[in-house]
Amino acid sequence: MKRIKLVVAYEGTNYCGWQVQPSGVTIEGVLNHTLSQLLGEEIKVTGASRTDSGVHSLGNVAVFDTGTRIPPEKICYALNQRLPADIAVQSSCEVPRDFHPRRCYSEKTYEYRILNRKIPIPTLRRDTYFYYRPLDAAKMQQAAAYVVGRHDFKSFCSIRASVEDTVREILSCTVAKPQEGILTIRVTGTGFLYNMVRILAGTLILVGIGELEPEALPGILEKRDRSAAGPTAPAHGLTMIGIRYVSSETDTMEV
Amino acid sequence: MKRIKLVVAYEGTNYCGWQVQPSGVTIEGVLNHTLSQLLGEEIKVTGASRTDSGVHSLGNVAVFDTGTRIPPEKICYALNQRLPADIAVQSSCEVPRDFHPRRCYSEKTYEYRILNRKIPIPTLRRDTYFYYRPLDAAKMQQAAAYVVGRHDFKSFCSIRASVEDTVREILSCTVAKPQEGILTIRVTGTGFLYNMVRILAGTLILVGIGELEPEALPGILEKRDRSAAGPTAPAHGLTMIGIRYVSSETDTMEV
Repeated sequence: MKRIKLVVAYEGTNYCGWQVQPSGVTIEGVLNHTLSQLLGEEIKVTGASRTDSGVHSLGNVAVFDTGTRIPPEKICYALNQRLPADIAVQSSCEVPRDFHPRRCYSEKTYEYRILNRKIPIPTLRRDTYFYYRPLDAAKMQQAAAYVVGRHDFKSFCSIRASVEDTVREILSCTVAKPQEGILTIRVTGTGFLYNMVRILAGTLILVGIGELEPEALPGILEKRDRSAAGPTAPAHGLTMIGIRYVSSETDTMEV
Repeated sequence: MKRIKLVVAYEGTNYCGWQVQPSGVTIEGVLNHTLSQLLGEEIKVTGASRTDSGVHSLGNVAVFDTGTRIPPEKICYALNQRLPADIAVQSSCEVPRDFHPRRCYSEKTYEYRILNRKIPIPTLRRDTYFYYRPLDAAKMQQAAAYVVGRHDFKSFCSIRASVEDTVREILSCTVAKPQEGILTIRVTGTGFLYNMVRILAGTLILVGIGELEPEALPGILEKRDRSAAGPTAPAHGLTMIGIRYVSSETDTMEV
């Protein structure tokens, strides 16, 4: 038996998110089913980021154990032959048997993309959030700087989450000047709470339209109250970009 | 009665192209139907670029005549409320009654986008052509330079076309270095033959993989024979970017 790590890209539009649900098609479910068919044994993957319904990915990570004799690096090609067009495994490789994609140190990067112009562009409607009121990217960048570091992000956590420790570390958070109408919020951190990036995006949008000042961010964090932050921005603007694992055993594994 | 010009963006995936067909849903058909509903009179639009099934647009142009009292600039907003999400009119304005989007001088720009990497990216599957063999963008650019100017493009015209005069003028043709895996061929010309950009893309791909030398292009043009050029690249990689009209009467109208 060996443990295989997959880097998984997908368009989330047609899925009920990553995690297997009582009903509805999920990325995890499709991977389990397709891997089991391909390898002739029952496979259950463990995902790094359990993305919500409608969220996309360029580099989510999943691992599974298998006795297959297919060379690890070839599994992704065989798998892509069988996967639907909205899921594509970017790479596959062997990792140590004790590697767990959520339990070891990692740096995850997400992007939230906003199409900020007067009129929507049809080809961008699935993976950008169309928002027509003009956003001040410079003010949003000022606000974003306040979330960098180790903070209690309870205000940026869905009230549906049951987690107790709401302290997380954000390594960087940038708001790029719009390119061809798309404003991109890019966040890297060692861990995220449920809906955290989407609530952060919703809050930065309030800053962008002048309803919040950038200097309001520290106060919102201090309140530890979901209602202090902005709304949860829609799922389809969010993309899981990639995960960087750094550990002594596995050395550096970059997505 | 006044004549209104629309700039129309769409994702072509779910349409049988621009032009009304005996069966199948078309962009033109949806615009006619939606405009007729909105304005309460029978509307028939005339399009500038009759794009094929699966081809996308950021800036195709259509005109129609109407007696409506809705201000011309507001028509696009009212129209977008009723159009499906894969069509969005970017602007509307009044033009002279004799303005015809195909019969006056114009400069049309198209882009053909190729996702050139080992493994597909799901979110890009509808508007880039996935091609895994590595392409030499510099050689493609060399080849592209040969088509600039006034040439007989019969070799680059679908044999299904019945046009007699196959001379067209290309103002520019560039192949940009891949960005995030996407190689973009951008062509501007005053007129195009049926499938011309897609055949050009298919021919440049042959240059990119070394099956044709850039210097072969003048010979292919000279032959005036469709079989001398490369294959017709798939429709979904092609996007109509925009049309620039320059005339004495309408002054400069840019998309």
